Amino acid sequence: MKDQTVIASTPRTTIRRLPELANRDRTTLHRIVDEAYVCHIAFGAGEDTHCIPTAHWRRGDDLYIHGSNGSRMIKALSAGAPASVAITLLDGLVLARSAFNHSMNYRSAVIYGRFDVVAGRDDKLAALDALMDKIAPGRKHDARPGNEKEINATSVLRIALAEAAVKVSDSLPSDKDEDLALAVWTGVLPLKTTRGAPVHADGNMPVPDYVRNWAE
Amino acid sequence: MKDQTVIASTPRTTIRRLPELANRDRTTLHRIVDEAYVCHIAFGAGEDTHCIPTAHWRRGDDLYIHGSNGSRMIKALSAGAPASVAITLLDGLVLARSAFNHSMNYRSAVIYGRFDVVAGRDDKLAALDALMDKIAPGRKHDARPGNEKEINATSVLRIALAEAAVKVSDSLPSDKDEDLALAVWTGVLPLKTTRGAPVHADGNMPVPDYVRNWAE
Repeated sequence: MKDQTVIASTPRTTIRRLPELANRDRTTLHRIVDEAYVCHIAFGAGEDTHCIPTAHWRRGDDLYIHGSNGSRMIKALSAGAPASVAITLLDGLVLARSAFNHSMNYRSAVIYGRFDVVAGRDDKLAALDALMDKIAPGRKHDARPGNEKEINATSVLRIALAEAAVKVSDSLPSDKDEDLALAVWTGVLPLKTTRGAPVHADGNMPVPDYVRNWAE
Repeated sequence: MKDQTVIASTPRTTIRRLPELANRDRTTLHRIVDEAYVCHIAFGAGEDTHCIPTAHWRRGDDLYIHGSNGSRMIKALSAGAPASVAITLLDGLVLARSAFNHSMNYRSAVIYGRFDVVAGRDDKLAALDALMDKIAPGRKHDARPGNEKEINATSVLRIALAEAAVKVSDSLPSDKDEDLALAVWTGVLPLKTTRGAPVHADGNMPVPDYVRNWAE
């Protein structure tokens, strides 16, 4: 029986560089996808290869994106262009004794496949609600929902989180034995994404919990 | 005479979606490249399209990357594969009165072209020093420099910051006139990359200024 908690390995998701960083745990993949707000998508269109940032979100084992029907990326991906989706969370700079052992701590996922268009109306609305829930839980009950024109002008696409290369680097510097005696500071310079104090566009409105609790 | 402060516009870097966000100022492009530590590179290799995160840095009007000679990406890009390099800095979530006017504040650059291999030994060493200067100014004087074997095993590639699409979104929510009377909180939930307290791998080493001043 297939182990649903493990990501399958394929030739293009087998990690050859630093294979000890490879992670095949599905929960780790989901956490990386959920923590990031923006992914980068590689796809071909005509003669060109593009790398385009866009908002993403997850439902179950699928990653979702949305965009205007007319956008170059939505048109190419809707037509079935092979895609690669990368999500990277940078956690720190790793300073070793030798220049060449400097590295970074990060968590990354690179997903391969093709996107499907979410065609059914109920499924599309549920997907868009999930995006709103990611941005601010409860916000979907406050904001005006999309009307027919807005919903029809927007495409929602999804790709299975099936073929994915996940890497996690979370370590102290590693030096060669012959460098260990060098009197050089070693360690990690951490980086993290933090939340700033909300900017109120209209001071007269009641402040919802998801705004009040944003920066904590 | 060509205006060197302005980025040339080509068919694939002309921004059609929200063209008012397009920015053709070269200084803005440089700042985006310099502030980010990681870019995403789209390229084709065989049948596949890849989107791979990697460290980058800048010297003048070129963006640099490096990697092991044997890596799939380095091999494809060294062979002249057309590439697209995206750098995205996410600054906040923008909450409007209507679901469909929600957006993000960000600064992004998408660069098109082909990479060149930095072949000359002096140029290669100078480029690697520039990477070290970006990570930690002064560190190149502390860490053991690369030896012949390490330098020869590493490729340094560069791409001109010539054909680039730069977008800057830094605004409060924008709603349609008919939505302005809705009693919904609007504003921006800011996001930023911050520096955490350095992790000392070896407590006996003197702490350099670039570590002491990291988190300030």
